Amino acid sequence: MKEKLEALKKRFAVVDDLQRAAALLSWDQQTYMPRRGAAARAEQLATLQKLAHEHFIAEENGALLNDLADYAAQLPYDSDEASLIRVAKRDYDRARRVPPTLVEEMARAASLAFEAWQRARAESNFKLFQPHLEKNVELRIELASCLGYKERIYDALLDQYEPLMTTAQVEAIFTSLKPDLVALVQAITRRADAVDDAVLHREYDVQQQWEFGVEVAKRLGLDFERSRQDKSPHPFTTSFALNDVRITTRLKPNFLPSALFGTIHETGHALYELGYRPELERTPLAGGASLSAHESQSRLWENIVGRSRGFWQFWFPRLREVFPAQLADQTVESFYRAVNKVSPSFIRVEADEVTYGLHIMLRFELENALVERRLAVADVPEAWNAKMHEYLGIVPPNDAQGCLQDVHWAYGDLGYFATYLLGSMFAAQLYAQALREVPAIPEQIARGEFGELLAWLREKVHAHGRKFTLDELARRVTGASLHARAYLTYLKTKFGEIYGV
Amino acid sequence: MKEKLEALKKRFAVVDDLQRAAALLSWDQQTYMPRRGAAARAEQLATLQKLAHEHFIAEENGALLNDLADYAAQLPYDSDEASLIRVAKRDYDRARRVPPTLVEEMARAASLAFEAWQRARAESNFKLFQPHLEKNVELRIELASCLGYKERIYDALLDQYEPLMTTAQVEAIFTSLKPDLVALVQAITRRADAVDDAVLHREYDVQQQWEFGVEVAKRLGLDFERSRQDKSPHPFTTSFALNDVRITTRLKPNFLPSALFGTIHETGHALYELGYRPELERTPLAGGASLSAHESQSRLWENIVGRSRGFWQFWFPRLREVFPAQLADQTVESFYRAVNKVSPSFIRVEADEVTYGLHIMLRFELENALVERRLAVADVPEAWNAKMHEYLGIVPPNDAQGCLQDVHWAYGDLGYFATYLLGSMFAAQLYAQALREVPAIPEQIARGEFGELLAWLREKVHAHGRKFTLDELARRVTGASLHARAYLTYLKTKFGEIYGV
Repeated sequence: MKEKLEALKKRFAVVDDLQRAAALLSWDQQTYMPRRGAAARAEQLATLQKLAHEHFIAEENGALLNDLADYAAQLPYDSDEASLIRVAKRDYDRARRVPPTLVEEMARAASLAFEAWQRARAESNFKLFQPHLEKNVELRIELASCLGYKERIYDALLDQYEPLMTTAQVEAIFTSLKPDLVALVQAITRRADAVDDAVLHREYDVQQQWEFGVEVAKRLGLDFERSRQDKSPHPFTTSFALNDVRITTRLKPNFLPSALFGTIHETGHALYELGYRPELERTPLAGGASLSAHESQSRLWENIVGRSRGFWQFWFPRLREVFPAQLADQTVESFYRAVNKVSPSFIRVEADEVTYGLHIMLRFELENALVERRLAVADVPEAWNAKMHEYLGIVPPNDAQGCLQDVHWAYGDLGYFATYLLGSMFAAQLYAQALREVPAIPEQIARGEFGELLAWLREKVHAHGRKFTLDELARRVTGASLHARAYLTYLKTKFGEIYGV
Repeated sequence: MKEKLEALKKRFAVVDDLQRAAALLSWDQQTYMPRRGAAARAEQLATLQKLAHEHFIAEENGALLNDLADYAAQLPYDSDEASLIRVAKRDYDRARRVPPTLVEEMARAASLAFEAWQRARAESNFKLFQPHLEKNVELRIELASCLGYKERIYDALLDQYEPLMTTAQVEAIFTSLKPDLVALVQAITRRADAVDDAVLHREYDVQQQWEFGVEVAKRLGLDFERSRQDKSPHPFTTSFALNDVRITTRLKPNFLPSALFGTIHETGHALYELGYRPELERTPLAGGASLSAHESQSRLWENIVGRSRGFWQFWFPRLREVFPAQLADQTVESFYRAVNKVSPSFIRVEADEVTYGLHIMLRFELENALVERRLAVADVPEAWNAKMHEYLGIVPPNDAQGCLQDVHWAYGDLGYFATYLLGSMFAAQLYAQALREVPAIPEQIARGEFGELLAWLREKVHAHGRKFTLDELARRVTGASLHARAYLTYLKTKFGEIYGV
């Protein structure tokens, strides 16, 4: 059996190499590639992804996984070997259920939809995008029927990003959060003037922003012998190896949080990808447990740490050394309040911590309605605006600032959005547990010491790679399944104090 | 037959995609990769190269090439289709002759030899490198016997870099050049004081050097929507697609020619890779005809154009705008003479145009003696120093500045060096022909106009990609096989005038 396992690992290593190479091609496309290289790059990416897929779904892998099933059953559930066989089997079975023709058709439709979406958003004309979104939705309904599901069609789509989590579970969690969240937003909106964030919109030299961001990332624990930061239009994190994980950021001269919190957010993702045990490298267990688990790390560092009062007790004096003129009239307290300004707005990616969740619920609800055919694509703009009014009390002036704002539906990524909010919740749940086990963490943060928090996360979360589902991870680390309580307490305490509500 | 050809092209496109992806991994490793990413990158590169090789030598390709042989014979020799089948068949047959085990053994030995060479060079201790060079030589002798050859064992090695050229041909050309070259070096050495290049060693801001280099590259015709320049320890050119060809350079604050002529040299390579007809993309005909043909383009732009008086008539005033203090005491003429200083020296890559050829002949002669077992590896340092004394009148003070200076033997790249000098010769032969057909080129260069020379090279050389061998290209474009006469005339005329000899 050891030999069969070694044979399987060797085969998976080739798949991993191909996937990481494809990731590098994609990174390069978003950072350094000359403009006209795009067409050939698309072909190269398609070839690598196709080869990776073919190598992964090879019959031999299925046979080896079947042969190894009994062997795995005798091993401890959380051992490297049992986990590898269990997780790879799940991935393999899922991949085998999707016909290659459907994969190709989804890719082609997404490519056309992306082009149409760019035009539609630029002209704020939903009609241009509508037929493409209809096609993407139909293909995802077909995909779900190939993948299979027990209760809800959305389960199959969610499972791609958040393995084994069900729509019902997400709904239950979101439902337990929504009324309180809406009420909190309303209470804060009535005291909107309590926080002034004009300081963030002053002029900040981009090179100095860049250097400050790198200084923060390094102090948070990002090792620049194993990582680097580059610029890209949309910030992202990508991993080419356990010792080569890269982040990107974008710099805006008139909006300080863009690069700064972007860097901290991506640093959170990168620390996760840099933290699995070396034994898992080049296996299907390399990486993060799920998208929600990943987002928990980025948001924990960005929001719970990076937008905390303690964080700015340490960093504000340093930031004022870099930007003395711009910050002359500021204190730690005024700056802390500025970076925590809450205000209902149209664009999800610019939303504050409090309103963010409602943007996600809206999308999650519309996606469910679409794939259950309770909502026609043609009626999306109306449904979108109605929910915006209900949850945030505002209505977008046009579809570009409404239902056309995100790229996800153009790519056909239905089932994805929920993970952003689940990640925020898991971050709060994890952090609460960390404080129970290491109460000194907030004082350490206020002294600019982040090592003990990182070590805790590394041991409890990062080290396991993809071994566990989100639910398994939540139970192991916090003793409970994912819930909204810690998140709600965090929001109410922090913003209640800031806004006096 | 059309269908079989299409099937073949589709299969080759996958090979091309894999090779280009590997090239990107290698580019990234030399430019941006975090230090500790190296080990995983080596695995990924090995996987991509292995897959590319397997896909290329697949039996199906051989069957298709055989089926298409008669069809190709009816087509014009220089048609895209006949050329594709002819060149691919040559590549295929060569690749099939080498057992995968030998490929692996060569790669492993080269990897160990490279490590040992680095240490040996740092300590100037040839004994550390000797056993590895012995292994590399033995493996190349074995490789040559797998590849096969008619007359000389070196033919098989040379053929890897310069297809269908024989050792006897190279020897004949080198022999026709050597006495005159040695005599020219001796004559110039007696008048060494005639040229002063101290100006090149002044302090030049590296960012301004960078910007000036980019300005020159653009004016030579490098399109930055299809190309870019980055920094790397060793300058190189690499191609990821017809519309994505990249160069690198290195900047030295105290030596102006390093970045400037490095950029022009790599621009010459890049213009070649950017110039084949779009129909050849993603086929085995994409790229340059051979290493010598490639080097002819880099050296034509670097030396024949970039170190010409006319070139500096245009560029010197601009360069003095950038570096007014450093160049205040210079004229076009003094600067032109400085960048053409001739002086026998130990290091090949720093050699001037006149002495360069003798560095190459030395290596070519030693490599032949090694694989014909006329020279033992242990005796390489002595043989090296003897030839240095004979050709250049100097003896290296140590092996680091002698037989340990180049990386090629560490990689096992025996058969490669000759192409550098053949390229210089072909550059002179091509340029003489260009002047016959477009006599206005020198005046255009003096006005900063490079378009007509580039258009001529594009039509005569670049457009054909890998269709023709060097000899076919030389006959088609200049009416004669490669010879040393144009090169010798060029050197004698230019340096005779500069040094008054």
